[in-house]
Amino acid sequence: MVQINGDRLIATLREVAQFGAYKTGVHRPTFSSQDMDARAWLIQRMEQAGLSASIDGVANVIGRSSNNGPVLLVGSHSESQNYAGWLDGILGVIYGLELAQSIHEQGLPFAVDVGAWSDEECHYLQFLGSRSFCDDLADHEIDVARNKDTREPLRDALRRVGLEGRPRELIDPSRYVGYLEAHIEQGDYLDSHDLKAGIVTSIVGLWQYRITVKGQQNHAGATRMVARKDAGVALMRLFAMIEERFPQIAGERSVWTVGKIELDPGAPSIIPGGAEMLFQFRDESLVQLERFERELVGLIEKLNAAGPCEYELHIVDKAVPKVMDPSLQNHLEAAAERFAPGKAVRMPSGAMHDAQIFAKRLSASMLFVPSIGGISHHWTENTSDDDIILGGRIFASAAGSILKEAAV
Amino acid sequence: MVQINGDRLIATLREVAQFGAYKTGVHRPTFSSQDMDARAWLIQRMEQAGLSASIDGVANVIGRSSNNGPVLLVGSHSESQNYAGWLDGILGVIYGLELAQSIHEQGLPFAVDVGAWSDEECHYLQFLGSRSFCDDLADHEIDVARNKDTREPLRDALRRVGLEGRPRELIDPSRYVGYLEAHIEQGDYLDSHDLKAGIVTSIVGLWQYRITVKGQQNHAGATRMVARKDAGVALMRLFAMIEERFPQIAGERSVWTVGKIELDPGAPSIIPGGAEMLFQFRDESLVQLERFERELVGLIEKLNAAGPCEYELHIVDKAVPKVMDPSLQNHLEAAAERFAPGKAVRMPSGAMHDAQIFAKRLSASMLFVPSIGGISHHWTENTSDDDIILGGRIFASAAGSILKEAAV
Repeated sequence: MVQINGDRLIATLREVAQFGAYKTGVHRPTFSSQDMDARAWLIQRMEQAGLSASIDGVANVIGRSSNNGPVLLVGSHSESQNYAGWLDGILGVIYGLELAQSIHEQGLPFAVDVGAWSDEECHYLQFLGSRSFCDDLADHEIDVARNKDTREPLRDALRRVGLEGRPRELIDPSRYVGYLEAHIEQGDYLDSHDLKAGIVTSIVGLWQYRITVKGQQNHAGATRMVARKDAGVALMRLFAMIEERFPQIAGERSVWTVGKIELDPGAPSIIPGGAEMLFQFRDESLVQLERFERELVGLIEKLNAAGPCEYELHIVDKAVPKVMDPSLQNHLEAAAERFAPGKAVRMPSGAMHDAQIFAKRLSASMLFVPSIGGISHHWTENTSDDDIILGGRIFASAAGSILKEAAV
Repeated sequence: MVQINGDRLIATLREVAQFGAYKTGVHRPTFSSQDMDARAWLIQRMEQAGLSASIDGVANVIGRSSNNGPVLLVGSHSESQNYAGWLDGILGVIYGLELAQSIHEQGLPFAVDVGAWSDEECHYLQFLGSRSFCDDLADHEIDVARNKDTREPLRDALRRVGLEGRPRELIDPSRYVGYLEAHIEQGDYLDSHDLKAGIVTSIVGLWQYRITVKGQQNHAGATRMVARKDAGVALMRLFAMIEERFPQIAGERSVWTVGKIELDPGAPSIIPGGAEMLFQFRDESLVQLERFERELVGLIEKLNAAGPCEYELHIVDKAVPKVMDPSLQNHLEAAAERFAPGKAVRMPSGAMHDAQIFAKRLSASMLFVPSIGGISHHWTENTSDDDIILGGRIFASAAGSILKEAAV
């Protein structure tokens, strides 16, 4: 069995949290200097852990084991959302690093490759690193991607950080017995139920829409109420109908969110002539996703028939649910049972993760550790040191048993 | 009676619409080069109309008559909203110019001063010009004002256009018998009732609020619906309650508008932790304004008691209704009756106008001409040439009778 060093694990996490430190969290957006410094630091630490490490053309940092036998690929992402938590992503990378370091020190006959996949957080292009590594990314997607905040083209960013012309590394699926990723839950399920480990059964499908409303821009003082075609009021009507109807048809773990609303022109004394919102829903069941979409389309048809504004539904993405490998789930569950009996649960992941990309090429599974209060994508995100260490032990133990089984 | 030249009036309006021409409208924001060019052109044209014209320290262009006898002050604003209509504001200035030109040519014994008051449209500071001229503006307000779009400080703008250090001209109330302003209605009342002239009885009170909601920012996939404190959903609830309740307690001409909504951080996969909206209502009755405010406060108290989000109501402005001078209204109505019998109506102005500033220092009144379809603050804003000319005749005739009466 692989024994990790819990104190070193925490110390390493605190060390890497200095790159882009912000309050109790980090601000380490993809291709910022703090992100690139963290990647350089990771290469050094991977080398110290006995791995042969390098950075590729999209900033994936990959450390390869030279040990013989079946190889397990582990990892996650190392950049953060803006002004976000200190564990989101990097926890899975550092679990991998600590695992490799322990194997190296203890001279164990296990081969683990560790990856830090770039831009899972979509500053430029979501899953840039894992999609590139899994040969699921066309060059033209890189050509057109831009930073969501600064509008910097991705190509310019790659040139700026010195990666232009460097090849993108590609997965050799025959090298690996599977992919294992650890991550904070980002929800409150484990925390509120006093559970210590989530064994991810699937990563839910995420269907995203941009909904636009066209009305008539006009003066907010001079235009009588009866003469108005207020796109903002119309958008609010749809939002209210969604909030009324969706709970009635939702599955147990369905979620839906309006993340952004914009009124055009967005001035205090102008009746909005246009309005737009970003809407999404998630579920592990394709049937449920389709039920939601039918409902949404029905509401919009009803509102369009009623007038006076015109609604349009634009599909942004329809990612189907990704099932995690049952055998890897069993290894994780057995390891959790060893260290925290009765404190593990099988659960879907409502959040997207690199594991869903790897699931197309390898057997893949994920381990969740609790998020205090379920907070994430905010600098107050946290997990107790004890839970972090416990998660690291479960992760390392599962990795060991997977590799042991594969070696037979 | 003053006879204006209708063809010249239209030609002059078309000429000034070349400054910042945009589609069939104009883009002539305050202190843009096109705005300053238009002001320079105005000075020239005022001089040709026999006025002594100059620009002051906040870009007010004022043309003074040297004729003897009582003086009537007329005018409006010459800048436009962004990408807006060709008549909003400048119509009232050009009516004044055409009036002065006609008086000058016909050697009539009338004294009319014409003003183009700067920044009524609030690119930097609403009513900058009229408030400055009416001695209702403190220097420190100029010090802190910034452009709403570019954030350029007003002081920098004044330096940029060469007005730094130039004195601000101040009204001499003893010089004037009153203030008269013409403007497009900006609503659809005249147009939809086949009316040709609106005699403004009062400029409505405008109460403006910023409403903020505090929730809990979180991950839109991992956070269960029951655990959410979604500030966007909470804001939508208030908006829906306003739209349900306000029509039940509104006056005949009450209007209310949500002009802007912002969700924080406004990303597709993050549950908004904060939300904000700009809300306003207008009415000519103070009692009605107070009724609306009581209702709004009540709704927010109810929502705050219900939780889980926290609402806060911030007062932006509470401008009380401004009554227009009854005697000037009578002159306008008599003139309208002469040129368009049965086609005039007394009505409040839902929009704000420089006249409400002048009403604090002088007897003031306003004439509205029809807006086709009620459209304004948009480049498709328009009024038929016939209606423009008719309005000009009514305006000039009323000016003449006001001055004639005052001279007695």
